[in-house]
Amino acid sequence: MSNSDIILGEVLGTAVLILLGAGVCAAVTLKKSKSQNAGWLAIAFGWGFAVLTAAYISAGISGAHLNPAVTLGLAVQGNVPWDQVPVYIVSQMIGAFLGATLAWAAYYGQFQAHMADLANQADAVEGAKDAKAGPVLGIFSTGPEVRNAAQNLVTEIIATFVLVFAILTQGLNDAGNGLGTLGVLITSLVVVSIGLSLGGPTGYAINPARDLGPRIAHAILPIKGKGRSDWGYAWIPVVGPVVGGVLAGLLYNVALG
Amino acid sequence: MSNSDIILGEVLGTAVLILLGAGVCAAVTLKKSKSQNAGWLAIAFGWGFAVLTAAYISAGISGAHLNPAVTLGLAVQGNVPWDQVPVYIVSQMIGAFLGATLAWAAYYGQFQAHMADLANQADAVEGAKDAKAGPVLGIFSTGPEVRNAAQNLVTEIIATFVLVFAILTQGLNDAGNGLGTLGVLITSLVVVSIGLSLGGPTGYAINPARDLGPRIAHAILPIKGKGRSDWGYAWIPVVGPVVGGVLAGLLYNVALG
Amino acid sequence: MSNSDIILGEVLGTAVLILLGAGVCAAVTLKKSKSQNAGWLAIAFGWGFAVLTAAYISAGISGAHLNPAVTLGLAVQGNVPWDQVPVYIVSQMIGAFLGATLAWAAYYGQFQAHMADLANQADAVEGAKDAKAGPVLGIFSTGPEVRNAAQNLVTEIIATFVLVFAILTQGLNDAGNGLGTLGVLITSLVVVSIGLSLGGPTGYAINPARDLGPRIAHAILPIKGKGRSDWGYAWIPVVGPVVGGVLAGLLYNVALG
Amino acid sequence: MSNSDIILGEVLGTAVLILLGAGVCAAVTLKKSKSQNAGWLAIAFGWGFAVLTAAYISAGISGAHLNPAVTLGLAVQGNVPWDQVPVYIVSQMIGAFLGATLAWAAYYGQFQAHMADLANQADAVEGAKDAKAGPVLGIFSTGPEVRNAAQNLVTEIIATFVLVFAILTQGLNDAGNGLGTLGVLITSLVVVSIGLSLGGPTGYAINPARDLGPRIAHAILPIKGKGRSDWGYAWIPVVGPVVGGVLAGLLYNVALG
Repeated sequence: MSNSDIILGEVLGTAVLILLGAGVCAAVTLKKSKSQNAGWLAIAFGWGFAVLTAAYISAGISGAHLNPAVTLGLAVQGNVPWDQVPVYIVSQMIGAFLGATLAWAAYYGQFQAHMADLANQADAVEGAKDAKAGPVLGIFSTGPEVRNAAQNLVTEIIATFVLVFAILTQGLNDAGNGLGTLGVLITSLVVVSIGLSLGGPTGYAINPARDLGPRIAHAILPIKGKGRSDWGYAWIPVVGPVVGGVLAGLLYNVALG
Repeated sequence: MSNSDIILGEVLGTAVLILLGAGVCAAVTLKKSKSQNAGWLAIAFGWGFAVLTAAYISAGISGAHLNPAVTLGLAVQGNVPWDQVPVYIVSQMIGAFLGATLAWAAYYGQFQAHMADLANQADAVEGAKDAKAGPVLGIFSTGPEVRNAAQNLVTEIIATFVLVFAILTQGLNDAGNGLGTLGVLITSLVVVSIGLSLGGPTGYAINPARDLGPRIAHAILPIKGKGRSDWGYAWIPVVGPVVGGVLAGLLYNVALG
Repeated sequence: MSNSDIILGEVLGTAVLILLGAGVCAAVTLKKSKSQNAGWLAIAFGWGFAVLTAAYISAGISGAHLNPAVTLGLAVQGNVPWDQVPVYIVSQMIGAFLGATLAWAAYYGQFQAHMADLANQADAVEGAKDAKAGPVLGIFSTGPEVRNAAQNLVTEIIATFVLVFAILTQGLNDAGNGLGTLGVLITSLVVVSIGLSLGGPTGYAINPARDLGPRIAHAILPIKGKGRSDWGYAWIPVVGPVVGGVLAGLLYNVALG
Repeated sequence: MSNSDIILGEVLGTAVLILLGAGVCAAVTLKKSKSQNAGWLAIAFGWGFAVLTAAYISAGISGAHLNPAVTLGLAVQGNVPWDQVPVYIVSQMIGAFLGATLAWAAYYGQFQAHMADLANQADAVEGAKDAKAGPVLGIFSTGPEVRNAAQNLVTEIIATFVLVFAILTQGLNDAGNGLGTLGVLITSLVVVSIGLSLGGPTGYAINPARDLGPRIAHAILPIKGKGRSDWGYAWIPVVGPVVGGVLAGLLYNVALG
């Protein structure tokens, strides 16, 4: 696969992934959204079908990794040359940043209405000034319900291991090479599964680009009253998924290689 | 593809699409419906599986565009002759009008009960007299939560771009020609995705026929107390999706053509 | 296809269909059920996946009609010999009765707890004595929200037409003969679609056996305080689906035959 | 299939199944989980897609039984040698125990917060001391809403029969040997169906390993205030599924063998 295909597919695919993923978080969070408070099922299916849409678009271009943990797992497995790994990861980061910015554009009116409403609730704003995470950071990036680095890392490692291991074993099930249409569908439902089953503690980043790219967007975009970007937590949804993805590759090689 | 196949498939398919799509909006909106207040997940899955049903019926007849934005994107891509574009679009408009009328027929008793109840609430009716959109217009057509032409256009352009671009890249994933059964399924889940992730601001028309056909039906059908059809907004869910679909075709040609 | 295969597949398949379909209605209705009040999405997905399970089991045996309206539509289309039609329909009726009985057995403790609770609410029981439909009839059979024979017939005709027409056009999409695994999946999602979009007014019987078989079971089974079986309505979910299915076959022959 | 493949696939697959299945129960039950109270649809889709993920991972290794009732049904059908049955079942039990332990690890912070909160509610703790089932046992194992051995057995037998019979008839639908990717998807939706339709009375164990393995984990893991493991009920979700699975195999042989 050529570097230009990787760049095109991963920037485009990850941008769509985060546009739709941050989009569903905006949809259930912000005032003046028709689906405010649609609940966790909307989040889990929303992110899962975001993967479906993004992977369907980019599978035929770059193989639809869309996630540095997936790229690293495939590299450990031996299915991606190591010199292409940085091309994948940088493209994913750029795409994730672009996608978060597009989600903000699509929900611009809702962000304005939501923040104006918060500004009218003086107490809430006072509280937000001290909080590690601003009131709409959850639209962009993940955060823990119980803040404990070791526990949060364990959760992200386990959840990412399941995702990447499922992707690595695809070759055992399907005859053809690459990620077929049915594989795209199954992978997206695996993401729904992880969201329903393992998303409770940390919001299931399971993808360093999905968390870090939008966090940078949160830090840069001009959202009045947005508060802090919680950089103290930012390393966990990077390190946890990387460890989970590499472990999946190593276990695959030991047990099934 | 012959013009008669296009007309048959697109009228029939778009009628089924809007029957089921307006149907789910009626189902969650109207009194005396068993699923009143079933929530946004019902809307998103309802519209997605409306696409599934309609496309499954018409894929083998007309290719199941069911949407002028899709037809235009495919024409820009080079997969639909330009002289067939008007045949597709006029058929889609007729089908959409018929589908909205069928949905009204299926929910006739619910419309009567709902409007009678509204008429008993004098204040609500007074308010509705002044509103740009009548109390059941949302069953037929989309409308914005924050009324701002530029913002609403941006949201519709982004959402339609995702839909049409996903359809245009299908050829990169699937071996066969045309829209196979699995492609129908995936496309319907892409529509669920867009509903969950990008439907909050404007109700995701993403299809000029889906919005304009039922709006004409709303204007014509004898629904007592129906109020205004919000014609001031009607151009946005036409222009936005057209721009989004054409942009998807242009980007495809530049990047992947 | 031999008559013994038809009988085996349709009795077994329709029994599973109604076991799971009546089951989900019991699950969301009865006290002491873990999923009481799970809502309309549970109903719509529950019935859709009941079709999936039942059709998956019986597709390879009898072709998985499971519905007299489907059998009649296929007969009009020319894909089922007319002398086999009664074999299909009688088998479906027997299967539906058995399935309702099995659902009652699976929820026996819940029925007991629910009826005992109702008996303690004297007023409710007094009311139920006069009602056309007993308090748990909705677990077995459908009923209208607005009782109007013409309107209810129209709704059932439209909804059944969509179901049967989608099944009749399958041959245009899929290469192979019969109902493949992917066709089973799509058909089940069409049923979810109809449930979400057209189920609000009458509870979408769309299948004479699905309504009449369980209604007979309701009339026979020893459920204390069960009340009336609403026989005055019973002809509508038989006649409506039959008309809808035959219309689908006729339109197919005229337009696509 | 070699014993080492069976052990690898079934331990790994059943561990993933229970990690995700116990995970979704923890997710909707525990305080400080983002999806607390997400409802029965989350449970039913969560367990169904847990099967999807686990079976997708292990189908190419061990055939993805993941359930002693499935193994026994296939053995009765003649598709698994009887001397491999114990290898499957022991592996499934070990995997189930490991999966429950992993779910506990992923939700460790939530368990701590939840139990600390319960300890502060003195009355609740007093009550729990006497209860047959501790306050978080439902995350690990199933339990009845109406405690009646005969009724609970009937429900588990019926529900497991549907699952195993659907799996046994797969060969009638699909050309290839083994469990293809589409078969994994359908089977997972059958599990969603059983959860929606037959889960209300007993919580649908439908799998001896799914219930007994996590119950042992509940008994062993150091969860402060966990209360009793309800061993008096433990035989029902073992015996019921075994009977249901064997009955499915026998009926298959009689009717379709």
